[in-house]
Amino acid sequence: MERYTPIKVHMTRKLIGVSPENTVKEACEIMVEFDIGSLVVIENNKVVGFFTKSDIIRRVVIPGLPNSTQVREIMSSELISVDGNISLGEVLDLMAKKGIKHILIEDNGKIVGIFSLSDLLTASRRRLETAIAAE
Amino acid sequence: MERYTPIKVHMTRKLIGVSPENTVKEACEIMVEFDIGSLVVIENNKVVGFFTKSDIIRRVVIPGLPNSTQVREIMSSELISVDGNISLGEVLDLMAKKGIKHILIEDNGKIVGIFSLSDLLTASRRRLETAIAAE
Repeated sequence: MERYTPIKVHMTRKLIGVSPENTVKEACEIMVEFDIGSLVVIENNKVVGFFTKSDIIRRVVIPGLPNSTQVREIMSSELISVDGNISLGEVLDLMAKKGIKHILIEDNGKIVGIFSLSDLLTASRRRLETAIAAE
Repeated sequence: MERYTPIKVHMTRKLIGVSPENTVKEACEIMVEFDIGSLVVIENNKVVGFFTKSDIIRRVVIPGLPNSTQVREIMSSELISVDGNISLGEVLDLMAKKGIKHILIEDNGKIVGIFSLSDLLTASRRRLETAIAAE
């Protein structure tokens, strides 16, 4: 887990997506099934939105919307993403600065993965294991 | 961020709590205000429960409960905690194994803090900065 490793080494390549027409309930069931904190929203084979558990708390639970609300209503259309060649250190700085726990990774303008704090957990454990092996 | 650093060095000491009588809506507003993913539940000066955003997704949004539901109904009464002297490496292993993003830290049987993946972000950035300073 070195500062200069490109983020694409640590990202999760498998993006799990829903349609804008899916309901919040369906989206939440997918989050629970795959044990993930965010989902991309796909329309015509393109990522058109993104949302996290925090967005559901903020935009569904607090205002008291029903769980039949469509994903389209609560997703963020402005995607926060970085190039896959950016270093882990820079990405961590950006996430801390923006107070976000998930960031989309792109390659040539196309979203190819996601990096979350769960991936940081995996990266940290790998690094610690390497450190022990080297002792 | 060395493997053998005790977890109490990296934990957050300020525990933010709600009462079992608070509503889910009130609890979510506190989570948003303090930008945290979990809350402890306090009754008679004692931690009696704990819940995360994931628990709200699972136990409120999916079954379609109203946001006026009391915290008591959705909190976990079984607390997952570790001693503050346990090493960071062991805590990360435990979190990965249990698939959790927050863990309570105790000292002499009393809950004194919490460690979350956001604290891991802070610890990782600190370590990376130290590595740069040493270059």
